[in-house]
Amino acid sequence: MTYNLEKSNMVYNPPKNVTVYDTTLRDGEQTPGVTITPDEKRLIAQKLDNLGVDIIELGFPAASYGEQELFKKIKEENLNAEISGLSRALKNDIDKAIETDIEYIHVFIGTSPLHRKYKLKMNKSEIIQRAVDSVEYIKDHGIKTEFSAEDATRTEFEYLLEVCKSVQEVKVDKINIPDTVGISIPRQINQIITDLKKEITVPLSIHCHNDLGLAVANSLAAVEAGANQIQCTVNGLGERAGNASLEESVMALKTAYNINTSIDTRQIYNISESISRITGIKMPPNKAIIGENAFAHEAGIHVQGILENSNTYEAISPEVVGHKRRIVLGKLTGKSAIQSKLDEYNIKLTSKQFKQLYTQIKEMGDHGKTITDLDFRALSENIQGKPKKERIKLVGVSVMTGNNTLPTASVSLKIDDKIKEGAKTGVGPIDAALNAIRDIVKELIDINLDEYHIEAVTGGTNALGEVFVVTSDEKHNKATGRSTSSDIVMASIDAVLNSINKLLMIN
Amino acid sequence: MTYNLEKSNMVYNPPKNVTVYDTTLRDGEQTPGVTITPDEKRLIAQKLDNLGVDIIELGFPAASYGEQELFKKIKEENLNAEISGLSRALKNDIDKAIETDIEYIHVFIGTSPLHRKYKLKMNKSEIIQRAVDSVEYIKDHGIKTEFSAEDATRTEFEYLLEVCKSVQEVKVDKINIPDTVGISIPRQINQIITDLKKEITVPLSIHCHNDLGLAVANSLAAVEAGANQIQCTVNGLGERAGNASLEESVMALKTAYNINTSIDTRQIYNISESISRITGIKMPPNKAIIGENAFAHEAGIHVQGILENSNTYEAISPEVVGHKRRIVLGKLTGKSAIQSKLDEYNIKLTSKQFKQLYTQIKEMGDHGKTITDLDFRALSENIQGKPKKERIKLVGVSVMTGNNTLPTASVSLKIDDKIKEGAKTGVGPIDAALNAIRDIVKELIDINLDEYHIEAVTGGTNALGEVFVVTSDEKHNKATGRSTSSDIVMASIDAVLNSINKLLMIN
Repeated sequence: MTYNLEKSNMVYNPPKNVTVYDTTLRDGEQTPGVTITPDEKRLIAQKLDNLGVDIIELGFPAASYGEQELFKKIKEENLNAEISGLSRALKNDIDKAIETDIEYIHVFIGTSPLHRKYKLKMNKSEIIQRAVDSVEYIKDHGIKTEFSAEDATRTEFEYLLEVCKSVQEVKVDKINIPDTVGISIPRQINQIITDLKKEITVPLSIHCHNDLGLAVANSLAAVEAGANQIQCTVNGLGERAGNASLEESVMALKTAYNINTSIDTRQIYNISESISRITGIKMPPNKAIIGENAFAHEAGIHVQGILENSNTYEAISPEVVGHKRRIVLGKLTGKSAIQSKLDEYNIKLTSKQFKQLYTQIKEMGDHGKTITDLDFRALSENIQGKPKKERIKLVGVSVMTGNNTLPTASVSLKIDDKIKEGAKTGVGPIDAALNAIRDIVKELIDINLDEYHIEAVTGGTNALGEVFVVTSDEKHNKATGRSTSSDIVMASIDAVLNSINKLLMIN
Repeated sequence: MTYNLEKSNMVYNPPKNVTVYDTTLRDGEQTPGVTITPDEKRLIAQKLDNLGVDIIELGFPAASYGEQELFKKIKEENLNAEISGLSRALKNDIDKAIETDIEYIHVFIGTSPLHRKYKLKMNKSEIIQRAVDSVEYIKDHGIKTEFSAEDATRTEFEYLLEVCKSVQEVKVDKINIPDTVGISIPRQINQIITDLKKEITVPLSIHCHNDLGLAVANSLAAVEAGANQIQCTVNGLGERAGNASLEESVMALKTAYNINTSIDTRQIYNISESISRITGIKMPPNKAIIGENAFAHEAGIHVQGILENSNTYEAISPEVVGHKRRIVLGKLTGKSAIQSKLDEYNIKLTSKQFKQLYTQIKEMGDHGKTITDLDFRALSENIQGKPKKERIKLVGVSVMTGNNTLPTASVSLKIDDKIKEGAKTGVGPIDAALNAIRDIVKELIDINLDEYHIEAVTGGTNALGEVFVVTSDEKHNKATGRSTSSDIVMASIDAVLNSINKLLMIN
């Protein structure tokens, strides 16, 4: 630890506005296993621009030919955001960036003892010379220049200051302080920025990694000390544990500090979803701000409060970030949540029936079952003595596929005591079976398959596979269906019939 | 904001040791959609005990009959950790806890204006009376008592202090300060703990929610001010955006503060995986400490440093948390990473061949392809002019299933120009096909299917499904296989043949 924590003094002197420098397309793309194609990068850049980020770091022009082409093409989009490219402090790398007619270069060189000795094999003054030469070279081409002292937080402070002063002298536009290995704590970041500001007058930026889960807190600690910019990524993507997440940083600045950014927060949920889809990196339900559960409530004690006043259990309102509130039923559900659902569906129960419903929901929860809204309605109606029969039953099914066989299914269903049969082909055996079912039931109900998921099957080919579907009718009523079997084809058929039966109950 | 940030003064006076109070089984179970069965809770409690947590909050005895039974049964396990149960400050709830012969009760009541007005409909003194009565009642039964002032961070400080002093007077054992809606920042938490410590002498605990992504930072700020305990959950599970994650909190205390806990950190990765599997809540690859990418490196500039000295880009070593380092190949791969892989597989290339390989990898990366180690070996060997032929080819396959049909597959393979055929049954059509393949190839190679995943298929029954398998031979060589098709049965067959062919290349 370079800093003496006991002696540190957390300064509180934040600026009124903070610039958002998004590096989803550069550091975010460095997420191992993630590659974003040039077309996808252009699409994401447009979305980031609409979101309102100030600077978009599009990539690393020297990394590949495709990357260079992208920088040339992005100019046609006429975005409001400035487009930046990362470059090592090497003439060859910088030239490749300049060739793309770039307007903003983020140039970096390692400054810590470890980087000097093991990566660069250069001494302190050689590194300063290289930094100064690079900044001068870029500025000479009339390009805006942001300089990063890589691994700044593990650099001797006196030397870091010397590096920063040297690039400041040759008119660098901004200096960025990266916590490259994500090892810092807020107290330390605050002190570095505070001490630098005594001699550095160009705007300061912070770039934090999340290896200890502190990237956002460290970015905020830099702002408290007067940093003017946060480098961040949507969904906190990036090398290893990733970078400070844009959504958390922006919402913390707004909510806890009342500090402005140029971000239109209502687009946050939407862009997070797009980035998840494109990169294939799914965020967990408990991710702050944008997770599926970020505004979901299950426990009785919480739901009761939320229904009275949403502020009782919510730091911010979901609409502010374009998200939605959800009340979930389960083992911990309390009476208020059940009553609110009954009111929603206009179901009136006697107090005895209510008690029965409450107990049944608790028992289902105890056994690990998730209870959907349609399950809830079925349970309530059962208790009222109005159980609705399943109108469709599977009588027989036969499915075949192979490399020289058109996937084919024949299905026989009993609908209201009448046997109906049909056969269809499809792109695979499951598609064929569902085509056959849809065809057989079409006189009764016109089904659309909105969602079809095979939940990840793991373990072996004889493991249980779970199929989850959502179907809808012409009136856009939706019903879920779920089935588990070691035969994934049979599970799919069961799940679809299950959901169609639910739709028929309300038709 | 109750606190004046400008005037706050971040105290640094941490204790030498911090107690870990794990609430994965209570607040973690409140994750909407998650239910953990009693048997799973017992299993997790054993793992938490092995991990070394000081206190395990097992659940909410008053929530259901199953929950009460669990508290009684857990006694038979004779764990080292103390077993705690949560209870509202209500005689009825407390009695249900006492009935289970519990040794530690965590009792709470809301204290903030919103909770007083909307949830409890009680005034300040009524709440203090209820808190005091509850603590006295529990202590009278000889049970250790931790008290939480729910929504403490939004409670007027003077009143919060009064509540804490009142329960301290009746000999509460510990006082917990929950940031119930996750709205606080480190500076504020530090100040609350600092101010409380002026008059509160019993140990203080902190319980933070992650709605702004600051749960871990806030917990650490409390420790800086002298808090003795962190309440946390594995994988940061919990209501909405969850709680402070155990793994991040413990590793930050150890790495950045040099503060001891009783946790055996080498078990962290393992328990995180178990909890993911049991709850179904998967952590993203960029999750700090335990994510798949937490110690993975792709970008050339990073790999070069890592290979020289792993400290250049790693805050902590993966072994410390029972995890592994990975070098990933892709678009950003540099020459050092490629050379290290060539060395690893003892492949010698001329400099011209090396350049060719480097370009091919870059191009594959530009097109969004992930490159596995076996792909890398195949590419290198191709360039060396030693391409290895696939020995097994699929000639024909026919698969059938249905509700009255035993799933059956007949397969015909061409192995080294000789046609071989066979048929088998299975629990489903895919299992049947793989049984047939294993049977046909068994004279050549004895295959074990180690892993079989259908990656979540989403969109429709005609969407592409991706199958990923790992097979191994008698000598425990492992090979992966991957295939994508809209016919999940055919994709499975292709993936398995793909991996068997790879195994045959090295046999």
